[in-house]
Amino acid sequence: MITVYGDYRSGNCYKVQLTLSILGIAHRWFDIDFLAGETHSDAWAARNPARRIPLLELHDGRTLVESNAIVHYLARGSALLPADDFDHARMLQWMFFEQHRHEPSLSVARLIHWYHGDPADRHDELIARQEGARQALDIMEQTLAEDAWLAGERMSLADIALFAHTHIADQAGVPLWGWPRVTEWCARIEQCPGFVPMQQVSGIGDTIDPYP
Amino acid sequence: MITVYGDYRSGNCYKVQLTLSILGIAHRWFDIDFLAGETHSDAWAARNPARRIPLLELHDGRTLVESNAIVHYLARGSALLPADDFDHARMLQWMFFEQHRHEPSLSVARLIHWYHGDPADRHDELIARQEGARQALDIMEQTLAEDAWLAGERMSLADIALFAHTHIADQAGVPLWGWPRVTEWCARIEQCPGFVPMQQVSGIGDTIDPYP
Ligand SMILES: N[C@@H](CCC(=O)N[C@@H](CS)C(=O)NCC(=O)O)C(=O)O
Ligand SMILES: N[C@@H](CCC(=O)N[C@@H](CS)C(=O)NCC(=O)O)C(=O)O
Repeated sequence: MITVYGDYRSGNCYKVQLTLSILGIAHRWFDIDFLAGETHSDAWAARNPARRIPLLELHDGRTLVESNAIVHYLARGSALLPADDFDHARMLQWMFFEQHRHEPSLSVARLIHWYHGDPADRHDELIARQEGARQALDIMEQTLAEDAWLAGERMSLADIALFAHTHIADQAGVPLWGWPRVTEWCARIEQCPGFVPMQQVSGIGDTIDPYP
Repeated sequence: MITVYGDYRSGNCYKVQLTLSILGIAHRWFDIDFLAGETHSDAWAARNPARRIPLLELHDGRTLVESNAIVHYLARGSALLPADDFDHARMLQWMFFEQHRHEPSLSVARLIHWYHGDPADRHDELIARQEGARQALDIMEQTLAEDAWLAGERMSLADIALFAHTHIADQAGVPLWGWPRVTEWCARIEQCPGFVPMQQVSGIGDTIDPYP
């Protein structure tokens, strides 16, 4: 059985949860409370030198980090990976865009706004991250005005990766009113068989010892 | 024939140049001077709504952006893509890490330090980016202490993607003295058949009309 170490409140971890649910893959989920700083412990650094979640552990103990690499590995052989080479490249294009411009804007703005309650000393940073988020949403809106999905003729990992922080953009202080195509696209993803909503709590995972 | 739109001084564009050279792929290269703001023109936005380089154009006019997605497409069927699924996932892990933590630190620090000459009003940002760069190099050093290459038994796109901004880390004000394994790994990559050094000039590409 595979094990995921993550936090249900994290957008990057939710990508993994959603992919596992859509594909119906049996797994254990172990909670790591990143808001309480659990990713900064030495025990965690021994597992992931980058001190982040999510982390996937295979039955033989090998591990993989980076949410987008994890879902790519989990989805091999499934319809979430486009069969056509160019569609696959487009999918990766959106997933790299997500890590370079979308996630750094939305997830940090969400942390400042939703979890830390807009502290004054991070105001300028919040404004800058929200502006980056709007640019990223504009770019998505342009593509989604022409296509139902970000890459190819059906839903792929690109949609899952971008959905994670997009559908909770209001928690970053960026409500989706101004992006109607993005809003419709979110609704399409929510209709997908196996869809599971993001959970806003931690501590409900399986009880296993993460540091045997 | 495929066409690349890029700037030889950009680390993200250099990944594409290096991959094309190693694989011996015929192409045209059209210069876009990103330091002069060419990526911000409306004509460029019509090609890439994200207003960035590099961009790959296929013979049929279809385009692809995001350096790491471009090299993944160019390398299909080659030895730069690990055949083993898990090695391939590890390769992607490093490439997503590059876009999320490595490139944003090193390339922005390089821009501030090397191209803009350390302006006082960006001092704090430079320090923060350099600290991020050191963390990214520490994480690479740990892996390269055990393995010759970042993913699998031979050089892959992970090595190319991370090499781009690592080997010019001194231009970001982060000389590589403290990371001996990373330094050795850079030298290994430079020995690879087809290796081409990064050029520090622009305006030497092919003369073609980018906006026909
Ligand atoms: N590029 C990584 C980013 C992972 C990431 O930043 N995870 C956050 C939770 S969403 C984390 O571990 N934060 C703890 C910290 O930054 O200390 C991925 O996509 O998996
Ligand atoms: N994630 C993109 C980043 C591309 C990028 O930031 N390119 C820079 C040159 S290295 C650029 O176009 N800068 C122009 C700008 O930011 O206005 C990729 O990997 O291709």
